[in-house]
Amino acid sequence: MTTDTAISTHQAVEDARNADLKLYVNGRIVPKAEAVVSIYDSGFMLGDGIWEGVRLHNGVWAFLDAHLDRLFEASLALDLDIGKTREELTQALADTAAANGMTTDCHARLMVTRGVKVKPFQHPAFSQSGPTIAIIMEHSKPSIPRPIRLASVAHHRGLPLTQDAKLNSHSKLNCILACIAAEKAGADEALMFDPFGFVNTTNACNFFIVRKGEVWTSTGDYCMNGITRGHVISLCRENDIPVFERNYSLVDTYGADEAFMTGSFGGLTPVGTIDHRPLKNAPGPMTQRISALYRDLIARHCAGT
Amino acid sequence: MTTDTAISTHQAVEDARNADLKLYVNGRIVPKAEAVVSIYDSGFMLGDGIWEGVRLHNGVWAFLDAHLDRLFEASLALDLDIGKTREELTQALADTAAANGMTTDCHARLMVTRGVKVKPFQHPAFSQSGPTIAIIMEHSKPSIPRPIRLASVAHHRGLPLTQDAKLNSHSKLNCILACIAAEKAGADEALMFDPFGFVNTTNACNFFIVRKGEVWTSTGDYCMNGITRGHVISLCRENDIPVFERNYSLVDTYGADEAFMTGSFGGLTPVGTIDHRPLKNAPGPMTQRISALYRDLIARHCAGT
Amino acid sequence: MTTDTAISTHQAVEDARNADLKLYVNGRIVPKAEAVVSIYDSGFMLGDGIWEGVRLHNGVWAFLDAHLDRLFEASLALDLDIGKTREELTQALADTAAANGMTTDCHARLMVTRGVKVKPFQHPAFSQSGPTIAIIMEHSKPSIPRPIRLASVAHHRGLPLTQDAKLNSHSKLNCILACIAAEKAGADEALMFDPFGFVNTTNACNFFIVRKGEVWTSTGDYCMNGITRGHVISLCRENDIPVFERNYSLVDTYGADEAFMTGSFGGLTPVGTIDHRPLKNAPGPMTQRISALYRDLIARHCAGT
Amino acid sequence: MTTDTAISTHQAVEDARNADLKLYVNGRIVPKAEAVVSIYDSGFMLGDGIWEGVRLHNGVWAFLDAHLDRLFEASLALDLDIGKTREELTQALADTAAANGMTTDCHARLMVTRGVKVKPFQHPAFSQSGPTIAIIMEHSKPSIPRPIRLASVAHHRGLPLTQDAKLNSHSKLNCILACIAAEKAGADEALMFDPFGFVNTTNACNFFIVRKGEVWTSTGDYCMNGITRGHVISLCRENDIPVFERNYSLVDTYGADEAFMTGSFGGLTPVGTIDHRPLKNAPGPMTQRISALYRDLIARHCAGT
Amino acid sequence: MTTDTAISTHQAVEDARNADLKLYVNGRIVPKAEAVVSIYDSGFMLGDGIWEGVRLHNGVWAFLDAHLDRLFEASLALDLDIGKTREELTQALADTAAANGMTTDCHARLMVTRGVKVKPFQHPAFSQSGPTIAIIMEHSKPSIPRPIRLASVAHHRGLPLTQDAKLNSHSKLNCILACIAAEKAGADEALMFDPFGFVNTTNACNFFIVRKGEVWTSTGDYCMNGITRGHVISLCRENDIPVFERNYSLVDTYGADEAFMTGSFGGLTPVGTIDHRPLKNAPGPMTQRISALYRDLIARHCAGT
Amino acid sequence: MTTDTAISTHQAVEDARNADLKLYVNGRIVPKAEAVVSIYDSGFMLGDGIWEGVRLHNGVWAFLDAHLDRLFEASLALDLDIGKTREELTQALADTAAANGMTTDCHARLMVTRGVKVKPFQHPAFSQSGPTIAIIMEHSKPSIPRPIRLASVAHHRGLPLTQDAKLNSHSKLNCILACIAAEKAGADEALMFDPFGFVNTTNACNFFIVRKGEVWTSTGDYCMNGITRGHVISLCRENDIPVFERNYSLVDTYGADEAFMTGSFGGLTPVGTIDHRPLKNAPGPMTQRISALYRDLIARHCAGT
Repeated sequence: MTTDTAISTHQAVEDARNADLKLYVNGRIVPKAEAVVSIYDSGFMLGDGIWEGVRLHNGVWAFLDAHLDRLFEASLALDLDIGKTREELTQALADTAAANGMTTDCHARLMVTRGVKVKPFQHPAFSQSGPTIAIIMEHSKPSIPRPIRLASVAHHRGLPLTQDAKLNSHSKLNCILACIAAEKAGADEALMFDPFGFVNTTNACNFFIVRKGEVWTSTGDYCMNGITRGHVISLCRENDIPVFERNYSLVDTYGADEAFMTGSFGGLTPVGTIDHRPLKNAPGPMTQRISALYRDLIARHCAGT
Repeated sequence: MTTDTAISTHQAVEDARNADLKLYVNGRIVPKAEAVVSIYDSGFMLGDGIWEGVRLHNGVWAFLDAHLDRLFEASLALDLDIGKTREELTQALADTAAANGMTTDCHARLMVTRGVKVKPFQHPAFSQSGPTIAIIMEHSKPSIPRPIRLASVAHHRGLPLTQDAKLNSHSKLNCILACIAAEKAGADEALMFDPFGFVNTTNACNFFIVRKGEVWTSTGDYCMNGITRGHVISLCRENDIPVFERNYSLVDTYGADEAFMTGSFGGLTPVGTIDHRPLKNAPGPMTQRISALYRDLIARHCAGT
Repeated sequence: MTTDTAISTHQAVEDARNADLKLYVNGRIVPKAEAVVSIYDSGFMLGDGIWEGVRLHNGVWAFLDAHLDRLFEASLALDLDIGKTREELTQALADTAAANGMTTDCHARLMVTRGVKVKPFQHPAFSQSGPTIAIIMEHSKPSIPRPIRLASVAHHRGLPLTQDAKLNSHSKLNCILACIAAEKAGADEALMFDPFGFVNTTNACNFFIVRKGEVWTSTGDYCMNGITRGHVISLCRENDIPVFERNYSLVDTYGADEAFMTGSFGGLTPVGTIDHRPLKNAPGPMTQRISALYRDLIARHCAGT
Repeated sequence: MTTDTAISTHQAVEDARNADLKLYVNGRIVPKAEAVVSIYDSGFMLGDGIWEGVRLHNGVWAFLDAHLDRLFEASLALDLDIGKTREELTQALADTAAANGMTTDCHARLMVTRGVKVKPFQHPAFSQSGPTIAIIMEHSKPSIPRPIRLASVAHHRGLPLTQDAKLNSHSKLNCILACIAAEKAGADEALMFDPFGFVNTTNACNFFIVRKGEVWTSTGDYCMNGITRGHVISLCRENDIPVFERNYSLVDTYGADEAFMTGSFGGLTPVGTIDHRPLKNAPGPMTQRISALYRDLIARHCAGT
Repeated sequence: MTTDTAISTHQAVEDARNADLKLYVNGRIVPKAEAVVSIYDSGFMLGDGIWEGVRLHNGVWAFLDAHLDRLFEASLALDLDIGKTREELTQALADTAAANGMTTDCHARLMVTRGVKVKPFQHPAFSQSGPTIAIIMEHSKPSIPRPIRLASVAHHRGLPLTQDAKLNSHSKLNCILACIAAEKAGADEALMFDPFGFVNTTNACNFFIVRKGEVWTSTGDYCMNGITRGHVISLCRENDIPVFERNYSLVDTYGADEAFMTGSFGGLTPVGTIDHRPLKNAPGPMTQRISALYRDLIARHCAGT
Repeated sequence: MTTDTAISTHQAVEDARNADLKLYVNGRIVPKAEAVVSIYDSGFMLGDGIWEGVRLHNGVWAFLDAHLDRLFEASLALDLDIGKTREELTQALADTAAANGMTTDCHARLMVTRGVKVKPFQHPAFSQSGPTIAIIMEHSKPSIPRPIRLASVAHHRGLPLTQDAKLNSHSKLNCILACIAAEKAGADEALMFDPFGFVNTTNACNFFIVRKGEVWTSTGDYCMNGITRGHVISLCRENDIPVFERNYSLVDTYGADEAFMTGSFGGLTPVGTIDHRPLKNAPGPMTQRISALYRDLIARHCAGT
């Protein structure tokens, strides 16, 4: 999962097996209570880390290659040596799943920070013992999410030299403040604008609208290049659904026929209201059609076909 | 310390006593190796926390009131209930110092995150067991810092609705990327611009220049309102040194007579070169004068006079 | 008509029948002199309203569906309940036309404001008696417009959260100030930039240039999504004329082979000079070709074919 | 009144005398039901007008000179010939008051639009019969306003070449959309940002915060230069209350001790909550102190002392 | 002269002595016709140079120290070694004046470029033979300038990392395009905005307005820090004339009582009209008062008192 | 050549014949030492000119038509009458080549400035004797360039109303400052951002990256519309290489498989490192493929096929 997950997708009854998880920390698989990092860790002190979320489906990590590509690209930007190969990271996921007896319907968050610092200061040179690699893995059956309520907020995404949208980092305060603002306004999740006021993304997921049979999403310049987002765009193209990455405003959004969010955890989540204005359909027919296409894509991908 | 600390201020020989520290985590004082947090911690996963750095001088935490004011103000913005009073936090600092036998010349980093999450997702509502409060405390004798080398970088500070400069948070990736860029360009620390290209701050400290007997620093709109920064401004005013919070450009900066950085950890640190252009003086007479005034202020403050 | 109408398109001799019009106000069809609203009206006091301009051609309102779509979408953004169905609004247009004996070559401005306020203050809650719906309808034979003179001006279109380009509102002061500036500079109409300095629109119409056989118009992000504009783009695509919605600058514009404006009232209007620099052709061959295509489109549309 | 009036200031019981008002329209004083303008009026069609709000106190229009200065300055920018002298406008106010038997505790809205158009199009040259001048005048006893609830919204004030903050115009849609957004978020009025994300103004009033004995308001660059705002600043200076026109952020605002709004209609209105975070005091001691100073200023001004 | 000179200041009859000037080029004083540079010169090819304008008054170069400070500061930013001391440059001015028999009422433009390139490409490393230093010196009696006509234009000043306002360079195309736009609009010189739309400067001079006894000029962030501008500000302060460096808009400017421009060549030049709107006074009483103060300052300065 | 040439392309041994060149100045062909302009020239004083770079290949000036189109378009924007036809300029190139005995493998820089001024001031009206036209022509054999080192810098390209990217002017200081910054950071050339922080161009060439078989370059909105750039895009399209003009960030750039620069002088130049991070391949297979396609295009073009 690139983008994070809206709260509404977790309202279902919690899987009892998650009470007793085994997690991965720097090569060791340990009970949840022992899955800890030093308070000198660069991730804890400074949000100096990167992560990916992936789902296990019938024994296959969905789109793992794309996730690892993005993780290694981010590590280059952060000048952070992961210290492990793609194969070693894949093995770590496999080992953790095995330790938990997971073979399908589970979700992993693979996190890499700059590691423990020798002094509690910002300069990366103080992180001298290699990265911290940690994996949280939980059982999570895909459910049919209820339509979510969005509120547009003043907190907006940043310019690329302040907050590069291509980095899925541990420094998410901007998104969290947006989420809090939305909650105060009576919604589940925030609809965020880009720095110029075009509709961009939610605080944790990518965002799409449907207008007269067309699917619109933001240009991608200021939001995470979500892997599910990419699949939705590709699926539209392959199925002759007109899809556009473009600027659009709040007026276009209120007037949409449907809207949905995407993320690796929840797939497509329908949006029910935006700023307390109900959308015409939730989930609407296009959302349902693309959801079906996406579920089918995962099934094919994980079947290796 | 609001702003963080430039690496050059730590080049001195490390204090051997720091090998064996006691740290504070959620009410318990434990050996450094046991000072850990869950990988489900909001600070680790998301940079969802706030912190303050303070120095102990002759038994008194310098300007602790101002630091606590800022911490509680930040917690209001984050809608994060610290769950402890100012007195309780002060006691935690005192207990940690006592456990380490520290009475002067030490430095504390007091960190408050939204705490451990029940699910590994972004929404703050998943943090349900109260905040994580942690204190790192180390021996650190003030040294006379050598002049530092700055490089101006393209990574810049953000607009207030992307990155509110008034929050001293755990989401510092923007500053870390700037620091890395400066290091690649052959410098110790980054000189960062505001979103419009005015000279703003270094990646971890506030920044001042001296021109023809005047002291200039940025408006403060896009940088941390550093407590040391505030004291430098006040000291200038009290001592009839003309001081201006204003926009200024790289041309003004290269042409400065002196430049220095400020932070709670290091006080004033002289700047020796900017983009490989040497400044006329490092440390220059104004930097030395204000440093002396600041040392005197701390001495008076901590003597309770 | 989405976008308004350049003055040059009205230089023809006025139709004498317009001296004696019947207009629609809130369900009543009255002589022009009685077509009035209270000075407590939200439209008069605050520009709090939306409107559409449409042309009657051989008994059919050209592209009325698209105009009503846009009107209802705008009303959703303004949280303004129009209180009438599309059918009722269409009937109001028909009744007004009938009252004036109009069957073709006339133009209507359908306006909807938030209605009369109980107190003369800004809050929309003071508008408590439903919207004001008014229709101005005039005879207007399409004429061959003379080439217009444009002057680029400093007044520019706004960001979507200041001035959403998708709203055709009663708050047009920004455009009017631009028009005045152009007139002072010796032109008929203003060429306005977007907030970043790309050529965007005129104060009342959409704007196109022709370069080496290609037709360029702005991205549409900061200008009204004019219905005539949309038809011109579609006609180009259907007729293998390369057309691009893109950013372009003043240099590209001065160097254009042709330029024209579009609006529901005037169709295509050729531009003769920009900042006193004559264009190579006015009207040029591409402008004439697309004009003919557009006239043909209206004829087919209004013939129901 | 420059800035408009928050709804909360009108929650009191309506004055029964307002049911039967006489209003001024273009030189005639008529019953409210006859106070109408043509739907061809530039104000109604396009928001092409300017206005001032003034209060009558003991027979004197408070600060009328400043209001007329601003009105005539705006008319110069709009290239709109008011066609009357200051004395004539003052007389119109006096006549209207007399017709209503008002001598104190009433409020007037003096509106000037570009007048009736000969064709329903945007160009100001179509307004050929002189301006429309209208006055709404109502009884309104100053009341003690209850603290208001603000919500920060994404709709923000514009750059000066899109929306010149110095113009108090009839094109207020930007502010109205902000107000609607605030209402949807459960508040009475919107707290609006400037284009860069600094706290600026409410949708209808100027905005101040109080922090540690200091009074802060925005720079004034992007908000109406309210006359009450100006008086509050002057009163602070004259009474040794530190007052700053400066940029500040949402973090500074949440952390304020007090906050209040200003406008000619309501004077000072305390703010109770911002984004559902209660302020420490509402009304706080500084708000009360400045309110008293302001009431005293009006009393002195209107007594001619 | 920092800022350049408006054309209107040169409308007087040309001094016949200027037909036969001696100019300085790289250490040689030659007749005007021989004052040439290679077409490989960095100044000619790329605008890669800096300059200062100074006036000779009664044998003294007015404010030469400030001009040389600025020149050397600019050379540091350009990483351009002037290769001469302040004394040597001063001597070059003296020698050129002597060669022309000039002792007062003359004007010099001292230009320093990166010199002749070995290849016609942009990289500064191709300039290998030292800078080009050239001086143009002309007779120019101060005249009483007629009021100038300004037109506001869309071309605006740049952000500091595109066009550092502190550099008085040979790359002036932005200003020239503005000037051309103003001329097309029927004016003598352009009134330019900063990147956000605040009134900033004319294309060649600094700009001031006078409002109700106060003198306003832009913040200086985006315009040349003119030396005459600085003197005007200082003179106001010394003479209890309220003066503000601040943002202000076109509305404030149209409504000004007076306006004037400043530059080293022409001192203060009154503005007669802005966008064809006449100012109340030209020259107004404040302009005349400050002009007199400035003439007196020069007289005192050049008399060495 | 539109864009200028990176220094690394000139590291080869200099052609000895270039010691004795004949150059063109205003109709005369003279030895290099006599190719001079007055220090009153608008190009020298103000960077008020435009230019094109072209290569001679087997007797044909590559893509001369496109270069002349751009030159004349620029002259229209500058309101600068070149005073010669396309044919006359072409003849001037031919005459200069003949005077130097050049038939292939040479490079010309054709420069047109506003000419000599009658007074040393900015206003274009002082340039009264027609433009200065100058041609530098040198032998330059295409070499295989070594991979170049880029450093990203804070100096960025401007908005179109400050620095219109479509003008290839003599005012290049912005690019030169960027180049100096890159050199200080240990690189050969600067990687510049657009005003919002997207990767845009180098200081003298256009810039492309290759990612997973796709070729990306910036939108072109803020960089020179290089003629080589245009050919690279066309060649990709004709050869089924996916090519995109789009926004992309530093993270995308560090993660690229290959990168190259383009310019009329050097064709394609591979990039070896960016901010000291090596690219995977330099030159990579795509760079080599497109280089070959481009060399073939020139050969075909210059053979008239």
